[in-house]
Amino acid sequence: MLKFVLNQKIQFVLVRPSHPGNIGAVARAIATMGFDQLALVSPSEHPHPESRARSSAALDVLLNASVHNDLEDAIGDSGYVVGTTARNRRISVPVSPIRDFVDEIVRISDKQKISIVFGPETSGLSNEEIDRCNHLVYIPSGEKYSSLNLAMAVQVVAYEIKMSLSPDEKIIPDRNLASGQEMELFYEHLKEVLLETGFLNPRNPKQLMRRLRALFNRAELDENEVNIMRGILTSYQKPKE
Amino acid sequence: MLKFVLNQKIQFVLVRPSHPGNIGAVARAIATMGFDQLALVSPSEHPHPESRARSSAALDVLLNASVHNDLEDAIGDSGYVVGTTARNRRISVPVSPIRDFVDEIVRISDKQKISIVFGPETSGLSNEEIDRCNHLVYIPSGEKYSSLNLAMAVQVVAYEIKMSLSPDEKIIPDRNLASGQEMELFYEHLKEVLLETGFLNPRNPKQLMRRLRALFNRAELDENEVNIMRGILTSYQKPKE
Repeated sequence: MLKFVLNQKIQFVLVRPSHPGNIGAVARAIATMGFDQLALVSPSEHPHPESRARSSAALDVLLNASVHNDLEDAIGDSGYVVGTTARNRRISVPVSPIRDFVDEIVRISDKQKISIVFGPETSGLSNEEIDRCNHLVYIPSGEKYSSLNLAMAVQVVAYEIKMSLSPDEKIIPDRNLASGQEMELFYEHLKEVLLETGFLNPRNPKQLMRRLRALFNRAELDENEVNIMRGILTSYQKPKE
Repeated sequence: MLKFVLNQKIQFVLVRPSHPGNIGAVARAIATMGFDQLALVSPSEHPHPESRARSSAALDVLLNASVHNDLEDAIGDSGYVVGTTARNRRISVPVSPIRDFVDEIVRISDKQKISIVFGPETSGLSNEEIDRCNHLVYIPSGEKYSSLNLAMAVQVVAYEIKMSLSPDEKIIPDRNLASGQEMELFYEHLKEVLLETGFLNPRNPKQLMRRLRALFNRAELDENEVNIMRGILTSYQKPKE
């Protein structure tokens, strides 16, 4: 279970976003990962019909976003600031792939408010803005083309933080696997039928039976499926009309 | 360095995408992670000015996308099919968070083509389409709001695969998984025989066939095993002595 208070300590900051659609898509992106703190620094247009549309069911996150004149103001109450960068800059702020730094983000956010800052679509954060960051993260990308859309970058970073926040409850399929004994009875029945059809050589049935065992063991049959398979075998054994 | 040939074995498939903008955003999303194989099943509009705009510098990926009438056709040459789902479905196709299954996707893709399939924006994949999948993956999300935009979901999955792709040669079990087409021929043959034995009700064969598909998809049959299974079916069809 996520602690809701924890998420409120992580704020996503967009600096001078130029496309309203991206702002809406970012609101949706962070909401799907359980976050609701969005700050906008000098957005070109906000709010805007396009950003409303793209925010989908996360309209409240969009409309509750705080709006600021500069980055300084947006990160004023943050104890730690993480910048995002597309490229490896020759600067003294330490840089990590997001996956390597995400546990640290979560650890810090337990104690104080933390801002994750994204620069404008085309230019990224300015050097002055980079200097305000305690750490930089980047998203590893392909060699030929590395320019993620702004909202996509936010989605990936929010996803990484979410994965670090909550070891996911795994979905356990609701299946009663067949017991070893039930499987043995099935294999005996199968062998019996395959000898009847002439598929198995009665003098050397072993090798094919081993292969069939490997196949069905891999499938991890549940009780219901063993019953289906045995029903099929029984339907063969009835005389043909 | 990534081996380019490896990436070409991973195909991203969008089933009935309704917004051209999403299609373009998906082309860009996969390109930024080093992929270029995109397949579209019955897109509402394609190509479209909006998808071109959103594809940004990945226009070639968008324009080279293959277009298909149905999922069947799109995955015909894939040996393995991974579906994506937003919710916990009560079906017997195994489900994992993408992070837990991504190494397996990369392992499989080293030997054969693999399709990662995304359903329509609002409804997701149909049950029939789910039945064509060997495995399902989902993106863990927040509790209050879990509906990722289609292109965002593709971005996260492509990012996970990119993070898993590594220069280390992994140990690959030497199995040639059967293609989608070979599996379809097997299922047709199985259905034919089960109608003959009277196991399937000719008026309602669907439900049992779905269960059998789930079972055999889970087993991930290789070519040899498909031949064995079809040999068994053929041995039944010979007249009893």
